[in-house]
Amino acid sequence: MPSIAEYNGVPLNQLFAEEKQGWSGYVEWENYPDKKAIASEVLKRNKFTPIPEFQFVPLPDTNPILIGHRWKEYHEALGLKYIVDHSWDIVQKEKPDLIHLLDFPYNGETRRDQLLQGKVTDNMYHFVRNHGGIPAIPDDVFELEIGGLVNKPVKLSLKDLKDESKFPQAEVTVTLQCSGTRRIEQIREYPGDGDELINAPWGEGAIGTAVYRGVPLKKVLKHACGGVLPVCEHLEFIGADTYFKKGDVFNYAVSVPWRKVRANEEVLLAWEMNGKPLPKIHGAPLRLVVTGYIGARSCKWVYKINALKEPSMGPVQRQEYLYYTSQLGKQNVKYSNGFSIQNMPVSSAIIKPSDKSVIVHDGKIHLEGWSYSGGGNWVERVEVSPDGGHVWYAVEENDLTDKHFHAWRLWKIDLPVDAEGWLEFCVRTWDSSNNTEPTFVRSAWNWDLHVTSSCHRIKLYSVNTTRPATKRRLELLAAYGEGIEPLTRPFEHSLEDPEEYLENYRKHRREPKD
Amino acid sequence: MPSIAEYNGVPLNQLFAEEKQGWSGYVEWENYPDKKAIASEVLKRNKFTPIPEFQFVPLPDTNPILIGHRWKEYHEALGLKYIVDHSWDIVQKEKPDLIHLLDFPYNGETRRDQLLQGKVTDNMYHFVRNHGGIPAIPDDVFELEIGGLVNKPVKLSLKDLKDESKFPQAEVTVTLQCSGTRRIEQIREYPGDGDELINAPWGEGAIGTAVYRGVPLKKVLKHACGGVLPVCEHLEFIGADTYFKKGDVFNYAVSVPWRKVRANEEVLLAWEMNGKPLPKIHGAPLRLVVTGYIGARSCKWVYKINALKEPSMGPVQRQEYLYYTSQLGKQNVKYSNGFSIQNMPVSSAIIKPSDKSVIVHDGKIHLEGWSYSGGGNWVERVEVSPDGGHVWYAVEENDLTDKHFHAWRLWKIDLPVDAEGWLEFCVRTWDSSNNTEPTFVRSAWNWDLHVTSSCHRIKLYSVNTTRPATKRRLELLAAYGEGIEPLTRPFEHSLEDPEEYLENYRKHRREPKD
Repeated sequence: MPSIAEYNGVPLNQLFAEEKQGWSGYVEWENYPDKKAIASEVLKRNKFTPIPEFQFVPLPDTNPILIGHRWKEYHEALGLKYIVDHSWDIVQKEKPDLIHLLDFPYNGETRRDQLLQGKVTDNMYHFVRNHGGIPAIPDDVFELEIGGLVNKPVKLSLKDLKDESKFPQAEVTVTLQCSGTRRIEQIREYPGDGDELINAPWGEGAIGTAVYRGVPLKKVLKHACGGVLPVCEHLEFIGADTYFKKGDVFNYAVSVPWRKVRANEEVLLAWEMNGKPLPKIHGAPLRLVVTGYIGARSCKWVYKINALKEPSMGPVQRQEYLYYTSQLGKQNVKYSNGFSIQNMPVSSAIIKPSDKSVIVHDGKIHLEGWSYSGGGNWVERVEVSPDGGHVWYAVEENDLTDKHFHAWRLWKIDLPVDAEGWLEFCVRTWDSSNNTEPTFVRSAWNWDLHVTSSCHRIKLYSVNTTRPATKRRLELLAAYGEGIEPLTRPFEHSLEDPEEYLENYRKHRREPKD
Repeated sequence: MPSIAEYNGVPLNQLFAEEKQGWSGYVEWENYPDKKAIASEVLKRNKFTPIPEFQFVPLPDTNPILIGHRWKEYHEALGLKYIVDHSWDIVQKEKPDLIHLLDFPYNGETRRDQLLQGKVTDNMYHFVRNHGGIPAIPDDVFELEIGGLVNKPVKLSLKDLKDESKFPQAEVTVTLQCSGTRRIEQIREYPGDGDELINAPWGEGAIGTAVYRGVPLKKVLKHACGGVLPVCEHLEFIGADTYFKKGDVFNYAVSVPWRKVRANEEVLLAWEMNGKPLPKIHGAPLRLVVTGYIGARSCKWVYKINALKEPSMGPVQRQEYLYYTSQLGKQNVKYSNGFSIQNMPVSSAIIKPSDKSVIVHDGKIHLEGWSYSGGGNWVERVEVSPDGGHVWYAVEENDLTDKHFHAWRLWKIDLPVDAEGWLEFCVRTWDSSNNTEPTFVRSAWNWDLHVTSSCHRIKLYSVNTTRPATKRRLELLAAYGEGIEPLTRPFEHSLEDPEEYLENYRKHRREPKD
């Protein structure tokens, strides 16, 4: 792709200069319609690498799994390649060991052993779902602007926000998840919209829990702005990252209802994660943490909050994270026939063992996983089935981590399993409002492949050593220096003593005698 | 792999010499236990390429799909590489255009358009499932030996067999299928035994129909041998191809009950296929055609028939093509806890459209496929469902090809479809004994992955142009020079007029007012 270094003789790095002294990687777009128009024109002049097809074909087994050629080229076309480079540096520093699902904008998934390490996920392992590059904004030059339908617009430094004499602080244990968690299950059943961003093929690790420290947004609006005006119904959050949609450029913008913020002191402006400064990749110096909601509303690198009458007009709010009826798709989807995903429903996943494992056991199989519900509901009961959803065993209360209003519970169970061979295990969770999960992926498949909250199913190959025939076979395999795995490797020796075979066969011959 | 050219100073090509003058590629094993023992010892001295794992990973998208390294090496180790080379020459000559599932022993699958070309499959397109190399036996030197529990053992030349004054000839329309037809569906659900041969990952094309000409085996036994002895219960067929099993070497040998042969004049010794000489790859000069049975019993290159008290002791008969309960597997399978597959059950497949296609239609979707039942049952009714098996439409009698006692029926249907998006279509067939098919792959999964006779299911993306919103979207796509495909390619333009969107949104806002 040829790089366009200038527009009508003006160098791009001058046209799309950084807005504020000391803020790197942040370009202000929303205040300058003319600048946005020029950027669109520059983008139109370029050809970009097509979005690769990954839904109808197997995913590459590389890490990073997918390469964000196109999104990198968008930045490059606007003279913003340095943001791409900086972002990858941060990934390598802050998240060296995730599954790099997409290298840019960075989407990193937590590995299964990291997921189960405890109720709280280590900062280094917490999943990341970014929508643009990572800006670099030093604490001391940062300021947050609050405007729109408030009694008093303000600008607040980080120092102001951290001043406990002005704002009471809070620590909240919060699970955040991408609404694309477990999307790969929907893709495997039926491919959907191939939008380069919404379609990240997440497994079960696009979810994580941390203790965030910050100030309740409600308190900041009250104490700093003298409250919102009566007409205010939504709060818009604008992040310092640059976002692209159908050839146009934006700052990342989303919104949540004022009613949500007012009712929940746990909606935070946060600068600390698990007792440590918020990592750059997670939104430093300041981010929203919107409890119970889809992760996309927990705006990172937030520098502006607008009190509005209506939801944000940003494309992330209005044109993405929409939930469609199963029969809508490319032939008929509109923005107005999907509804916006805000609160997350109850969902769960079996994390251990992994799908298609061979399990040698003595009548019980150990399973572990997570269960979560959003919207202020918490996990009340987890049930696991060893037979595809016919019989269900409840996880004992002692085998669940503590309850929180806004966080998952990890669970474990020793499930009685007599049968051998391939079995289908699944989990379902009941939350505090008695919500539970749809039965099958198809039950809730949708074109944008969001909210895979159906019962999570895995296939395990059960080898029950309490069965005499199995015990004998394992001993025979061991005598030949072989094991039950690899499962599909055929046993090179005879499966049966020839005399025993003939005796059996003659006793129960195949054809009737008369 | 180092080639062992001799054994105790004797060259292998002398030890394993061809048995009969002018017969190339045929080594007699069954008459010489000492020779078999030497071959086993030679095989033990070699290391062979391991069987590749293809069940837990995606299949290669090459053609040939799988390469029979190991089986080629077995032949090479015994000095029989010329058989491998000859076989591939024959494939290129007789079957240039099949899906080469495995290059050696050759397994070739018929493509979907070839499958649907008519009730009878052209010789060039008829599927092939070989268990060894292809011998080359000229008609004029061929002889068939019949012995064992018959009144008079005989040797018959091809000329004898074709002499209508001795034996009445018959032409029969016969569908033959591998018991592994549609095995790929079982593999995708749950991998099974990785035996290098039985595990060919067939799709829907390991089935074909031809008109065979030959003499009923029953008549040959009667007129040439004076009938079988009263104690005879099975007829063993031995083919000129060399077969390997767990380090030992054999001639290909299978058997069918005498009761089957006696009751069916359609069990033929055949030399003609669709009015043409039997192709080499299909068993020339002479093969069995065992109607209604698994293809494996229709022994190719048959040179010996033995009347026996019990089924053949050959490994193909006793240790393969066994049908196991779903909960049996590597940990406990024996030869005596599976039952031998002989008659084939009722089964069917949707051949057109192919899985995961996008179908633009005006309220009806056209489907075509095959339906078959073995064991002398014929296809009575075919039913197709547009909703995963809830509602079923019967194919009209006029849209089915003619009935035969031993052949499939091809069918077509215009299925009423209103719904859009991803739909699951499936087919089930009822045979003349009112048998129908298991509902799901899991319903009949078995460790050796045989007999995938469950309702065949495909996913189609339905785009119904009689719906106004869809018609408008297709027009919009066309205006931009785009189409509905590729389905996952996102539409680069706005999905909705902004004013119309806002009007819709404001009329039906997301949050309640109070």
